[in-house]
Amino acid sequence: MKFILNDQIIDQQKAMIHVSDLALLRGYGIFDFFRTVGLKPLYFDDHIDRFYQSASMLRLPCPVDKKRLKSMILEMLVINDVANSGVRIVLTGGESATGYSIGIPTLFVMNEPIGPLPEQHFTQGIKLISHEYLRDLPEIKTINYIVGIYMQPDIQAAGAVDLLYHWQGKISELTRSNFFIVDKDNTIVTPGSGILKGVNRKHVINLASRHFRVVERDLFMDELTGAREAFITGTTKKVMPVYQVDDIIIGGGKPGTVTEELQSRYESYLEDYMKNHS
Amino acid sequence: MKFILNDQIIDQQKAMIHVSDLALLRGYGIFDFFRTVGLKPLYFDDHIDRFYQSASMLRLPCPVDKKRLKSMILEMLVINDVANSGVRIVLTGGESATGYSIGIPTLFVMNEPIGPLPEQHFTQGIKLISHEYLRDLPEIKTINYIVGIYMQPDIQAAGAVDLLYHWQGKISELTRSNFFIVDKDNTIVTPGSGILKGVNRKHVINLASRHFRVVERDLFMDELTGAREAFITGTTKKVMPVYQVDDIIIGGGKPGTVTEELQSRYESYLEDYMKNHS
Repeated sequence: MKFILNDQIIDQQKAMIHVSDLALLRGYGIFDFFRTVGLKPLYFDDHIDRFYQSASMLRLPCPVDKKRLKSMILEMLVINDVANSGVRIVLTGGESATGYSIGIPTLFVMNEPIGPLPEQHFTQGIKLISHEYLRDLPEIKTINYIVGIYMQPDIQAAGAVDLLYHWQGKISELTRSNFFIVDKDNTIVTPGSGILKGVNRKHVINLASRHFRVVERDLFMDELTGAREAFITGTTKKVMPVYQVDDIIIGGGKPGTVTEELQSRYESYLEDYMKNHS
Repeated sequence: MKFILNDQIIDQQKAMIHVSDLALLRGYGIFDFFRTVGLKPLYFDDHIDRFYQSASMLRLPCPVDKKRLKSMILEMLVINDVANSGVRIVLTGGESATGYSIGIPTLFVMNEPIGPLPEQHFTQGIKLISHEYLRDLPEIKTINYIVGIYMQPDIQAAGAVDLLYHWQGKISELTRSNFFIVDKDNTIVTPGSGILKGVNRKHVINLASRHFRVVERDLFMDELTGAREAFITGTTKKVMPVYQVDDIIIGGGKPGTVTEELQSRYESYLEDYMKNHS
C-alpha cells in the first residue's frame, strides 16, 4: 500500500515520524477518517473541511492546501486500488524544540482495508455501557482516545461493544459515534453541543428530517428508560440500532421501526449521494 | 546525541516510529521525565518505578525490564556526556492492527539539554491563570497534554507562565507541576488525590515535614485569597514561588518566608541525596 507523508506518496513502510514529534511526546494532533465507496471517497469535502478546521483550531498549519491534499488522496486511492477502504488523515504537532511547543506539523494519510462489522450489529443492534467522562475539546477531532481504549476490558467484560459517555447525567456521544433516541412521540433527539459533530450524523439528520421530527438538544441519561428506540451513527456504522445501555433495555431489546426505516432509507440516500457526487 | 529505541542505543536522527503507532493515531502512550545532576540521574528509581507503573496501568508491556532500561540509560548518558540534562522515557501503544487496539509497544528514550528557567521565577515567583479542567486518568503519566498546549496563547496573553487546573472550585495541579499553599497557620497544604503525584512533590513533602506541618487534602480556589504563600514543585522547578493566580495577589505579591526557607533547604536536601545515592 502507498501512504502520503507531507507532500509525497510513498511506500507504507517508509511512513515514519521522528520521536521528537509533539504527537508522540504530548498527544498533540488532529485527524479525520472517511471511507470509500469503490474507490470514491464518501462525503469527501465534509471530511476535508473538518480536517482543516480541526487543524486551524489547534493552530497546526497543514503542509499542503485542500486542493493538493484532495488530489494526492485520489491519486493514492487509484494506485492502491482497494475498493471500500478507509482513509485516515493525521496532522501532528511536529518536531518540538522544547518538547512542549508546536513545531512544523507532519501530515500523513493512511489507506486501510475496512473489515466488515458484524452483521447482527445492524440487524439486532448493540449494547452499550455508560461511562461518566467529559472529553477534552470535544468539538475538535483530536487524537486523544486514551479513555476509550483504556476502558476496553470493561466494555468486553460487560458484553457490550462501546461506551456511552455522559457527564453528570447529560449524554454526549460514544467513543467514535454519535447517539440518538426516538422518544415516545416518535421525535428523534440527539445532543446538539459538547460533542464531535460527525459527518454521518449530519447526513442522517438531513435524511431523517425529511420524514420525522428531529431535535438537537441536551439529552439526559434518565430519558433512556422512556425512549422507544436508540441508534448511533458513524462512518462505518451508518445507522446502527442500540438495544441496551447498562441495565436499561430499549424498545423491548429489539431495533425499532423508526431506526429500521432510517437504515433502509439511508442505503438509498447513499446511492443518490454517490450518483450526484461522481 | 544518542537516543534509545527499544533495546538499542542509536543515533538521535534514526529514532523514528511508524505512523501506525497507537500513540500517533490515538494519543495512547505514557512517559516519564527526570533530570541529571552532572551525568547522574536524580531520583532515578522513583522515575523508573513510576514509568513501569504507568505502563502497567495502560496495559503496555515494556520491551525491556527495569534493570536493562536503567543500564541502557546510564550508558547513553556517559556516551552523550551532557551534564545537567533531561531524560524523557516514552512508551507508545505500538503499531495497531485496527487503529484502535494496543499493539507491541515501542520504547524510546531521549536525552535533552535543559535550558535554564528564568532566575526571577525562583526569586520573585510566577503568575498563574486558573482553568477549569479535569484531566483524563490524572494519576497515570499519559502523554495527553492537548489542553495545556492549546491554552498557551491565553497564558501568554495574561502575562502568566502556566495554568492552575481546578474543577468546580477544587484545585488539582498545574499542567506539569504540583501546587501547594501555606495557610494562615503556616500549615503547608497540597491536594492529595486526583493529581499526578510528582516525584519532586514527594521529596519536597518529605523535606517540608521535618520543619512544618504538611497536610494532603482537598484544596479549593476560594482558599487562595486567605493563603499566606503559594508555591509549585516539579523536576526543573524544584520549589518555585507563586505570587498571583488570576487577580488574586498572594503574600503581597512576593515569595513568602516558608517558601524561601524550603527553597534554601531543598538545595541542601539535593546535595545530601546525591551523596547518598552515588
